[in-house]
Amino acid sequence: MIIDSHAHVVIPPESYKFMAELVANRANPYAVPKLADDAVRAAAKVILDIMDEVGTDIQFLSPRPYMQMHSVKPAAVTALWTQHMNDLIYRTVQMFPKRFRAVAGLPQYRDESPVNCFKELEFRVKEQGFIGCLLNPDPTEGDAAPPPGLGDEFWYPLYEKLCELDVPALIHSAGSCSPRESYTLKFINEESISIISLMNSRVFEKFPNLKLIVPHGGGAIPYHMGRFRAWSVRKGGEFFDDKLKRLHFDTCTYDKDALELLFKVVGPDRVLFATENPGTGSAINPKTGRAYDDLKPDIEAMSFLSEQDRRNVFECNCTRLYTRFRKDE
Amino acid sequence: MIIDSHAHVVIPPESYKFMAELVANRANPYAVPKLADDAVRAAAKVILDIMDEVGTDIQFLSPRPYMQMHSVKPAAVTALWTQHMNDLIYRTVQMFPKRFRAVAGLPQYRDESPVNCFKELEFRVKEQGFIGCLLNPDPTEGDAAPPPGLGDEFWYPLYEKLCELDVPALIHSAGSCSPRESYTLKFINEESISIISLMNSRVFEKFPNLKLIVPHGGGAIPYHMGRFRAWSVRKGGEFFDDKLKRLHFDTCTYDKDALELLFKVVGPDRVLFATENPGTGSAINPKTGRAYDDLKPDIEAMSFLSEQDRRNVFECNCTRLYTRFRKDE
Amino acid sequence: MIIDSHAHVVIPPESYKFMAELVANRANPYAVPKLADDAVRAAAKVILDIMDEVGTDIQFLSPRPYMQMHSVKPAAVTALWTQHMNDLIYRTVQMFPKRFRAVAGLPQYRDESPVNCFKELEFRVKEQGFIGCLLNPDPTEGDAAPPPGLGDEFWYPLYEKLCELDVPALIHSAGSCSPRESYTLKFINEESISIISLMNSRVFEKFPNLKLIVPHGGGAIPYHMGRFRAWSVRKGGEFFDDKLKRLHFDTCTYDKDALELLFKVVGPDRVLFATENPGTGSAINPKTGRAYDDLKPDIEAMSFLSEQDRRNVFECNCTRLYTRFRKDE
Amino acid sequence: MIIDSHAHVVIPPESYKFMAELVANRANPYAVPKLADDAVRAAAKVILDIMDEVGTDIQFLSPRPYMQMHSVKPAAVTALWTQHMNDLIYRTVQMFPKRFRAVAGLPQYRDESPVNCFKELEFRVKEQGFIGCLLNPDPTEGDAAPPPGLGDEFWYPLYEKLCELDVPALIHSAGSCSPRESYTLKFINEESISIISLMNSRVFEKFPNLKLIVPHGGGAIPYHMGRFRAWSVRKGGEFFDDKLKRLHFDTCTYDKDALELLFKVVGPDRVLFATENPGTGSAINPKTGRAYDDLKPDIEAMSFLSEQDRRNVFECNCTRLYTRFRKDE
Amino acid sequence: MIIDSHAHVVIPPESYKFMAELVANRANPYAVPKLADDAVRAAAKVILDIMDEVGTDIQFLSPRPYMQMHSVKPAAVTALWTQHMNDLIYRTVQMFPKRFRAVAGLPQYRDESPVNCFKELEFRVKEQGFIGCLLNPDPTEGDAAPPPGLGDEFWYPLYEKLCELDVPALIHSAGSCSPRESYTLKFINEESISIISLMNSRVFEKFPNLKLIVPHGGGAIPYHMGRFRAWSVRKGGEFFDDKLKRLHFDTCTYDKDALELLFKVVGPDRVLFATENPGTGSAINPKTGRAYDDLKPDIEAMSFLSEQDRRNVFECNCTRLYTRFRKDE
Amino acid sequence: MIIDSHAHVVIPPESYKFMAELVANRANPYAVPKLADDAVRAAAKVILDIMDEVGTDIQFLSPRPYMQMHSVKPAAVTALWTQHMNDLIYRTVQMFPKRFRAVAGLPQYRDESPVNCFKELEFRVKEQGFIGCLLNPDPTEGDAAPPPGLGDEFWYPLYEKLCELDVPALIHSAGSCSPRESYTLKFINEESISIISLMNSRVFEKFPNLKLIVPHGGGAIPYHMGRFRAWSVRKGGEFFDDKLKRLHFDTCTYDKDALELLFKVVGPDRVLFATENPGTGSAINPKTGRAYDDLKPDIEAMSFLSEQDRRNVFECNCTRLYTRFRKDE
Repeated sequence: MIIDSHAHVVIPPESYKFMAELVANRANPYAVPKLADDAVRAAAKVILDIMDEVGTDIQFLSPRPYMQMHSVKPAAVTALWTQHMNDLIYRTVQMFPKRFRAVAGLPQYRDESPVNCFKELEFRVKEQGFIGCLLNPDPTEGDAAPPPGLGDEFWYPLYEKLCELDVPALIHSAGSCSPRESYTLKFINEESISIISLMNSRVFEKFPNLKLIVPHGGGAIPYHMGRFRAWSVRKGGEFFDDKLKRLHFDTCTYDKDALELLFKVVGPDRVLFATENPGTGSAINPKTGRAYDDLKPDIEAMSFLSEQDRRNVFECNCTRLYTRFRKDE
Repeated sequence: MIIDSHAHVVIPPESYKFMAELVANRANPYAVPKLADDAVRAAAKVILDIMDEVGTDIQFLSPRPYMQMHSVKPAAVTALWTQHMNDLIYRTVQMFPKRFRAVAGLPQYRDESPVNCFKELEFRVKEQGFIGCLLNPDPTEGDAAPPPGLGDEFWYPLYEKLCELDVPALIHSAGSCSPRESYTLKFINEESISIISLMNSRVFEKFPNLKLIVPHGGGAIPYHMGRFRAWSVRKGGEFFDDKLKRLHFDTCTYDKDALELLFKVVGPDRVLFATENPGTGSAINPKTGRAYDDLKPDIEAMSFLSEQDRRNVFECNCTRLYTRFRKDE
Repeated sequence: MIIDSHAHVVIPPESYKFMAELVANRANPYAVPKLADDAVRAAAKVILDIMDEVGTDIQFLSPRPYMQMHSVKPAAVTALWTQHMNDLIYRTVQMFPKRFRAVAGLPQYRDESPVNCFKELEFRVKEQGFIGCLLNPDPTEGDAAPPPGLGDEFWYPLYEKLCELDVPALIHSAGSCSPRESYTLKFINEESISIISLMNSRVFEKFPNLKLIVPHGGGAIPYHMGRFRAWSVRKGGEFFDDKLKRLHFDTCTYDKDALELLFKVVGPDRVLFATENPGTGSAINPKTGRAYDDLKPDIEAMSFLSEQDRRNVFECNCTRLYTRFRKDE
Repeated sequence: MIIDSHAHVVIPPESYKFMAELVANRANPYAVPKLADDAVRAAAKVILDIMDEVGTDIQFLSPRPYMQMHSVKPAAVTALWTQHMNDLIYRTVQMFPKRFRAVAGLPQYRDESPVNCFKELEFRVKEQGFIGCLLNPDPTEGDAAPPPGLGDEFWYPLYEKLCELDVPALIHSAGSCSPRESYTLKFINEESISIISLMNSRVFEKFPNLKLIVPHGGGAIPYHMGRFRAWSVRKGGEFFDDKLKRLHFDTCTYDKDALELLFKVVGPDRVLFATENPGTGSAINPKTGRAYDDLKPDIEAMSFLSEQDRRNVFECNCTRLYTRFRKDE
Repeated sequence: MIIDSHAHVVIPPESYKFMAELVANRANPYAVPKLADDAVRAAAKVILDIMDEVGTDIQFLSPRPYMQMHSVKPAAVTALWTQHMNDLIYRTVQMFPKRFRAVAGLPQYRDESPVNCFKELEFRVKEQGFIGCLLNPDPTEGDAAPPPGLGDEFWYPLYEKLCELDVPALIHSAGSCSPRESYTLKFINEESISIISLMNSRVFEKFPNLKLIVPHGGGAIPYHMGRFRAWSVRKGGEFFDDKLKRLHFDTCTYDKDALELLFKVVGPDRVLFATENPGTGSAINPKTGRAYDDLKPDIEAMSFLSEQDRRNVFECNCTRLYTRFRKDE
Repeated sequence: MIIDSHAHVVIPPESYKFMAELVANRANPYAVPKLADDAVRAAAKVILDIMDEVGTDIQFLSPRPYMQMHSVKPAAVTALWTQHMNDLIYRTVQMFPKRFRAVAGLPQYRDESPVNCFKELEFRVKEQGFIGCLLNPDPTEGDAAPPPGLGDEFWYPLYEKLCELDVPALIHSAGSCSPRESYTLKFINEESISIISLMNSRVFEKFPNLKLIVPHGGGAIPYHMGRFRAWSVRKGGEFFDDKLKRLHFDTCTYDKDALELLFKVVGPDRVLFATENPGTGSAINPKTGRAYDDLKPDIEAMSFLSEQDRRNVFECNCTRLYTRFRKDE
């Protein structure tokens, strides 16, 4: 079975209109649109066609990260939008229960504690069967001084809640207000910052069951192992490579060379298959004639991976981590 | 002829998507959508149907004010959006030249000088036949300390340009980021602030040909003439009622009693017919069975207005002010 | 009996000096002046002469709002000044118990919770027989981001205290540091903001006995009923006109046309007679030869008001609301 | 002749009221009071009586420093107040030309360049015969980051103007918004900061004719010569005591021991007689039975001063510095 | 016995390197250097040679104040540095127990409550025999709005802890980020501010056993007694001179005239011998041929001091105050 | 010949002391140390020994980046420090002209224009033979909103100067004040941000001769080519890989796998040999027994590189870029 563990919902026109209105009216006053079943189905159909074409059995759907508006004032804006997106995902999964699973967006807001997200998270997991969530390490989106790194106690209440609910979190930043750093690059930088903050922390000693996934091949870190290994040798304590194994990664790098480096550095048992298809990588690679995000053939062609390695990447790493996956079916 | 001098474009779904994306990607990177003719036509059709139903011959179309995003960082966001909206208006007017005229949005940005809008304004007026523009007295949208009042020299370069191009400006705020002040109320408050700032200034001595329209019945001022008359008596100089006649007003108040007060205070020769239909007033008044913004019957029923008064309100005040109206036909 | 429910104390020269010194020394160090009885009497005499001339029996005296210095740093400045003003009012009422009643100023400070005012409020009401208080919806006076609107839970502790003490609050802003918005216009805008914030809130469901008076004819709202009715129809729920009846208003508009609109919109049973005389309206209307704030003749001349309507406006609405009025005599 | 070179105007009640109103209305709108001759005369009389009692022939009058409101927003507040105070001083001097000379206040504003004061300064000196001015080294009054020290080029334009007009400046801070530092202590600290900033600068090389007076015995510096001598020895260059002689000082310390130290440190030819009487020192010293600011007897009793020393202190140092003193008589 | 109660540790090169690295790496990551015994000894030797030369028996060593980095972000920087300096002091005292005593630095941080210093303070006093500590009244070092004055309740928790541990605090500011105020002048100004804040407070009524020492001759206050006496007479209550006796002072003024004034004003029983040698005063006075900080001969030469006075200054005032001095020997 | 193009000076103890003092005294006042020849030689010897051991012929020395203090207020701090470091480098190169070349640090300051660096840069290049410089893309060091990205016109004046002087700039951030992002990780993130900002700009069309080197293997970009290729395909225009060839990279990644990816992605003709030895990578790799920064053996062992490739990496790419290299010998 091919599970694409990291994909985002396709947004229907009515929802874009709602988002535009939210920015304009700042939720004062506002009206939440009711999406027709047809609108939900049409959006899902776009994804299903792609899945069928590239051979994906199941996709995990979450809100489109760069559209989460975590920094747009006031907090009600992202709160309403997050609900709307999670509703859309829920209805999509209800409509196509064999093809999708739901991963929740969280209504994080600027530098506020993630405690404000508990109600939404619990509702989605307990009442609607969501199996994981996104986690934005910088909900200020570059518009202000960011909250502390993921290794800081600031995040402990959320980690406790994730453990309690037994759901993994996918570390994924949202938009970027900094004129010099596009949101797509900020994804990568935030992942690097998150990894190093966690590596320098006691988070996994405090929360041994915490499950965190760093997408996009782990930001810059697998490419800069030398730097962090040297630091780790100088400081003593657990070796950097060993500590890094507390984390999980995914394959969303859109490049075979990069993927090979990732498998070499963290091992095929820490990497989940993921494409964000349709998304950033949905453009045709002139060299291959396939889309950049059609990663399955690349992985299948890697001779240094064993059959079991590939099964792990395509399915087992994911199902081992997302324990609510099985229960919900 | 019935000219509705104050109305806003209906936004097609593709444009809502663009607006949502702009907020998410902060114009870094971005892609401007090309609207199909059908999309433009469909949006125009919504308005035309209403015009036919309520008996409007011509509408002046401008961007929907509360969606102008003048405060969203960085400046490229509102710049791109303003161009997109002005393009849409231009194409709509080109498609239905007998029914619409174009009033430009300006890419004002937070507390920056309006000089940054000259290029857009000149292009629209000189190259595309726009006949007026909107003017937002607080492009910070309540997110920061606002620029000086409209009576301040801060705005003189824009006034000079307006006089040079011989186009009126419709004073209209945009969104509101202040949690306690909705955008719809901010319209009113900004109009009051604009009027008093202009009344206490030497703007009309410096720019005797400047044409400014205060919509929505002039904010709170016609209802609070006593307060400002008393000040004016105490201070000496020109009497408040007389000085107020330098300004123009429109009928967008959605209430017959209020309209009567307006006509009484400023006189029917200073008021332009305007409805913003479809817009805020597009809800059925349970007392009349007509929409709140269907103001024509109310005005026609006002016995204290002469036939010429009505003609002035419905047409002549407007055509006298918008001198480019004739030229462009 | 003619009760002028909204008037402000006349400030003796010694108090102006104290205010000037407070601004200069920022209460570090400071010395509170002891006003001589003659100074108090002379100030009161100014008001009494006016009352006798226009035919007012009783005035409710509160601190002069625009001089409250709620935003001047540090908090001790307004705290000391408020005490001084309330002391002056108390002594004036003690001196002329048949002609005045006391309405307390509150030492609100910038964006701090109004809880800091409880001690002063309780002392004045319980120990000195004050019958109401002022409430400034923006004690930052435009110098910083304002606190949430009056519909927000931020204000609940104060509402609870007002209900417990059974005193009405007169919503009245103070000074204005914003260069574009004079304090006199800010009064109007703050009243509009307060009304809409309360209308969109659950304040009156939570505090059914809360008594709030919006002076100056209710800001801009009675003139813009069409706008808010349309919103209320679109949103459903209680109709705007009905919900507005939870509030009370006063006649301080200095204009007969405006007053007629007010009576028409909210009904004569929601309006209290008020003049702020001497104050903003104390200038001679060249059309009538009377001062703008000499409103009694205007109201008496309104033929559409019944005899009972007029009694309500001049006395009964006020005594019904200010329940401590009777008890104290 | 006894010249008291540093004294401040007594403020009439009407002016206190104006100051209070300015703070309340923030100069929007405002009305400048016209003081009656009697009000001016009454205020002057208070001073003249004291002068006669303590034996002062002539006083130099400037605005009361702590009331200058240099930090109160917006700039129009202090601009209007400064004009009003300078007008009062001018009229006082006109009324009693044998007893007073005029020293101008400057409308400095927060961290703005002192260039904004040129118009006022030139008018007072050239048109009205003022012979000097105050100079506030921190017009933010502790409410924000202060402008650079007096040794910085920020102040050069003002120094140039002072030289051009040939008038001395008395370095005197105004109010203090910092809760921990009263205005009266800030005077002292600002004088210390000013001296050291000037000592570490090239101001007197650039403006050899600049005349600056540090009142109140020179802040803390004469008491801390050891500290600054040691620095000066370590750094090389001109010795601290020598460089300090570029400055002038006055006797306003209210203490004989302190005055003796001052004379010893800077020499009697650098010190001007000054009392600020009536002012801070106008309280009876229980040890002497005289007011703390009655400094003449103390100086006369200092046996280590020669007759010429005393003449210098009481008259000649002052007339040598204030070159416009003679010309104007 | 000659006790120099106020001196600072000489910093070895390894510690300077650590400080430089801390500023560069902002404690993320960092490595604390282990000083070799030789490095500690070499640094101590510099001081011992001076002590022997000028005739000091015992010095009280604390961290060099201007290098405390209380404002450098984040708090970990000063925390690590303070530990390092206190460690160095501890080892120095252990090495030369007859010549030194330890006075702790506190890891104060910007405007945070001093409660964060309790752990360090208790450890040093209880476990390592430190006998006092420094207290910085402005740990923002001029980079931001300072915390309240020392008279404010903000500091009560620290005062309570000082009383509980029975250790005196030496009031000493650290660096200065304000371009116009060098750290060496800020010392003086902060001392003046501290004294006046304490004099206007109820601190000593609340903490009668609190022992605070104002070094450097008490800032500007002994030179400006007239000013504060006059205030105290006007306000009534305890006379300023009497209240000032709650504080203690030291001789670090580097000038004989200043020292004489200090002894005259506060009395020889409130002054502790102190030199900060080597430090600011370590430059040769060309007039005497001795270093400015070689104050012993000056004091010994003051004929107005009795033998007992001198003993008090050189030893007894200090041992009376530092009660832990005896116990530890 | 083996040229290590990216290495940093070893700092003598006297310079660490100077840096510590600069932070403490904020350059007010300050004293610049004169380093003895022996101190310079000893520091150089540390590097020479390493060079001899690993087989490097020539190193290019620049200031140690993380110690540049570009954000420490005021600007004089980094200005003095930069001069001191450049002086040290100059003297080192003068002493060992066959082994070192000088690369200048720039006194960039927070968000100020790099124009303030021209004087220093010109002096070093023209007068002292420096052959290149560092360029910090975020001199705020994370303490405030950063300046625009390197693609912005903000940097054009510097680019113009670099072209005029014909010197390459090495893009290298300095310290990091953000608690969540260590300086060592910020290096990587800033390089990624710089590359993408330059790729999205017209910098190389405007300055075709501009030579910019991105060290540390180009941040995260070579590992994330898929992401940026997909964007570039979608946007059209020059393909990402082709545009990337305008930049130069270096080998400082401390990891053979990463280096192989780098060579594969950008080609061996765009990569300069560089180690920063001694520095971050100076720790023993337990797997190889060699230091992480001993990269020469790794490169020599890469069989896919030709002999010419290796010569290019070790020497020719560098000498081609640093055109002043030859001239100066």
